[in-house]
Amino acid sequence: MTTSLHQKLEANATAVHQRLDSTMSLQLLAGEIDRPERLVDAMRHGLLNGGKRLRPFLVVQSAALFDVEAEQAMQTACALECLHSYSLVHDDLPAMDDDDLRRGKPTVHKAYDEATAILAGDALLTLSFDLLSDPACHPDPQIRAELTNRLARASGLGGMIGGQMLDLAAESGDPDEAEIRLLQRMKTGALIKFACVAGGVLGQADAEEMARLERYGETIGLAFQLADDLLDVTSDAETMGKAVGKDAGRGKGTLVGILGIPRVESLLAEAVEEADACLADFGDKAQVLRETARFIVDRKN
Amino acid sequence: MTTSLHQKLEANATAVHQRLDSTMSLQLLAGEIDRPERLVDAMRHGLLNGGKRLRPFLVVQSAALFDVEAEQAMQTACALECLHSYSLVHDDLPAMDDDDLRRGKPTVHKAYDEATAILAGDALLTLSFDLLSDPACHPDPQIRAELTNRLARASGLGGMIGGQMLDLAAESGDPDEAEIRLLQRMKTGALIKFACVAGGVLGQADAEEMARLERYGETIGLAFQLADDLLDVTSDAETMGKAVGKDAGRGKGTLVGILGIPRVESLLAEAVEEADACLADFGDKAQVLRETARFIVDRKN
Repeated sequence: MTTSLHQKLEANATAVHQRLDSTMSLQLLAGEIDRPERLVDAMRHGLLNGGKRLRPFLVVQSAALFDVEAEQAMQTACALECLHSYSLVHDDLPAMDDDDLRRGKPTVHKAYDEATAILAGDALLTLSFDLLSDPACHPDPQIRAELTNRLARASGLGGMIGGQMLDLAAESGDPDEAEIRLLQRMKTGALIKFACVAGGVLGQADAEEMARLERYGETIGLAFQLADDLLDVTSDAETMGKAVGKDAGRGKGTLVGILGIPRVESLLAEAVEEADACLADFGDKAQVLRETARFIVDRKN
Repeated sequence: MTTSLHQKLEANATAVHQRLDSTMSLQLLAGEIDRPERLVDAMRHGLLNGGKRLRPFLVVQSAALFDVEAEQAMQTACALECLHSYSLVHDDLPAMDDDDLRRGKPTVHKAYDEATAILAGDALLTLSFDLLSDPACHPDPQIRAELTNRLARASGLGGMIGGQMLDLAAESGDPDEAEIRLLQRMKTGALIKFACVAGGVLGQADAEEMARLERYGETIGLAFQLADDLLDVTSDAETMGKAVGKDAGRGKGTLVGILGIPRVESLLAEAVEEADACLADFGDKAQVLRETARFIVDRKN
């Protein structure tokens, strides 16, 4: 990762944190009756957790291809992060992955209680659509409605939530390569793709530009998951002296388990080339997105 | 209830059921990757449960004040029902109310499992915003974005979900009249009010008409909850020979418990008068909404 990309990611994470913090600190908005304090606290716990904010970064950077200012893209970026955060809060629940810690801090249901975590997740999901449909997101209602509809499709029964459902089934089964690819495209790929496409919607990209952003988003979405699976295996191998990672150990099939490390490494290298190809026609403006693809492939955590 | 209103409610419930059934049976929509069968089945279980569909009825009837055809209001009506259904699915979860049955059938987490119920609820909530933001809802994106934003506010941390949170706290506390009124305005009132206001948005009502719809919605929202609490006490008293109802027995304060049955009955009568007053300027077109207010106050189940 270049120093420059590192700095850009840091600056973006700070800006996203500040915007989310202020969103959760606002006085009541029109149509709201009251905001129960414990619910707000639990939402903040799930949202303001020091994440890398990669998805918001992709929104801002893909919007920048069309000269949309970061400030104009920030509400969409934050809406996406609210949605991503809700998915983690619900994913950590006892009935789902049953995780006690996230980023070294107690998960929401551990810090509060299970009912509060369910409601905090529901409220973060709802807030996401509040932010996208609000005039502060973009002055053109056509753009707000399109962002809303695309995010609903990417995150709903035919996208992220459907992927979670397939993931639950995969834990007790023995998924083959096609099944793993499908669940990963849905569970993690769809939101990353949305992040890239959202910049095009904000920038009123034409059909061809949108197609290239979609392909770029699909490519780095796959790479993100492959790198994650690889990291899981290699970091376990280093730190725990065993050859298979946590997910494989839990019987959860990954492409690394099926294809092997060398094949996955070459798929990652291909993904970087493919991402570059998608971005070629955007010229110098796409430099940050090119570096982001490399960062995703090379990341060490 | 007049025979005529009864027939209108039945016809609406049938139309809403058919539309929801077909929504859940569609081929993949643009942007969707796949719809896992078990998730779809669980969503259908929570959605197609023979409900009265009162909220959709209110959308259709308030839209009719402005000569909006039922067909044009139906997508908004169904979006609201998806949202209402998700709230019931999550409300029934073990960590929340822990109910095994709803309308005599196993709740979603009983018929499937807890993780599936959490995801089915999340997916119904997401589908609600998908339906509102889709061009099929209304050709004008300004109207779609406004409906989306109003529903998000009515159902989020400052509305329904916040009300659920207050309700959880009330179960272990001893809420006073003001606290009960606040939680009821949020938990059940906000969505009923949205139903009435949504018709005005679809019909492009002016500010004064919107204010009257809001007041009507608030009035029948309160009446709905009071009637519910009263029914709980009186039906228990009749069938089980005890003077206090299920909620009071569980330590859950209601206005009936605090104010007593005669006072609540007079509040209900006042609500009918207030509803009539809100509707006066709409003339004959508001006859069905007048009868609906009486139906809500007089309902026996």
